[in-house]
Amino acid sequence: MKILEDKILAEGQAVNADILKVDGFINHQVDPKLMQAIGQEFADHFKDQGITKVATIESSGIAPALTTAQALGVPLLILKKQPSKVLNTDLYQTEVSSFTKGTSYELTLSQKFISEKDHVLIIDDFLANGEAATGAIRLLRLAHATVAGLGIVIEKTFQPGHEKLAGQGIEVYALARIARMEKDYIEFLR
Amino acid sequence: MKILEDKILAEGQAVNADILKVDGFINHQVDPKLMQAIGQEFADHFKDQGITKVATIESSGIAPALTTAQALGVPLLILKKQPSKVLNTDLYQTEVSSFTKGTSYELTLSQKFISEKDHVLIIDDFLANGEAATGAIRLLRLAHATVAGLGIVIEKTFQPGHEKLAGQGIEVYALARIARMEKDYIEFLR
Repeated sequence: MKILEDKILAEGQAVNADILKVDGFINHQVDPKLMQAIGQEFADHFKDQGITKVATIESSGIAPALTTAQALGVPLLILKKQPSKVLNTDLYQTEVSSFTKGTSYELTLSQKFISEKDHVLIIDDFLANGEAATGAIRLLRLAHATVAGLGIVIEKTFQPGHEKLAGQGIEVYALARIARMEKDYIEFLR
Repeated sequence: MKILEDKILAEGQAVNADILKVDGFINHQVDPKLMQAIGQEFADHFKDQGITKVATIESSGIAPALTTAQALGVPLLILKKQPSKVLNTDLYQTEVSSFTKGTSYELTLSQKFISEKDHVLIIDDFLANGEAATGAIRLLRLAHATVAGLGIVIEKTFQPGHEKLAGQGIEVYALARIARMEKDYIEFLR
């Protein structure tokens, strides 16, 4: 997506080979016009797949997921992160561990908002190791819902997330794919 | 706002005199059409006040704040909750304590996204005790930004938030004002 790549080059900051800061327009200050274009792009790509709901993991995926849900005309599900397992039979829960951060949390979803009739598009801001996305897919499958695919704003193609998800048969559609970074240098895979 | 009140009556659930569940359309499952109408309503109300940015506190205020920022054509700032103070001179930080939950967190904002030229509209999903909103105002004032007002989706008028904020000279504009609740009973203040 050219306007996104241009914005990343103009306003993003490659801190080193791993860390890209896009806090000026994606995840701290948010550019609503760019978010609308991002949602429209995801909706156009997935529009013929019978999607019933969009899902995202709180909190930095909420903005692009909301504009996608708007464009598709379906509800948005915000999967909640909780520090520990809650004893509640009305919830689906699954543990997500972040190896890089050394932390883990319970991803939760109320059973009343998901069923085996749902075909869900998952949206997130970043794909790196794919831990959060894998957790979201596991959670949706607990409800016997099906996953239409994964829409990602920025993918770090040099990390294993894409391969891991594609290996499970999940379509990953990323709007900006980063091939390689160094301090103040960003190269896209097109 | 009639469509919001109707939705609360039809799909919200008063658990007791204090707790209102709106997780079917506001903060777990989100209704994008309703969010768009909410954003438009806030934008219409505050449109002549020279607002430069919309701010919200992660994460359940993000959806209505994004649609408000879209409608006003200004950037959105997502104020981040961090468990403890970070040593970083590029950040404004202030501690917010929740007396009801017995927890506290540091609300943070990068200095580069805010200045004394900004006139900020704060949006949040709920107003009860006003602790989060008071923290957001304190944070914005550290940057010498001015606060245009507070847009609230659902206000519990029987709790002290509104009074506390109005007492500081802040305009509070709430789209649904709850006068009183009991289990399965909701009364609005109009």
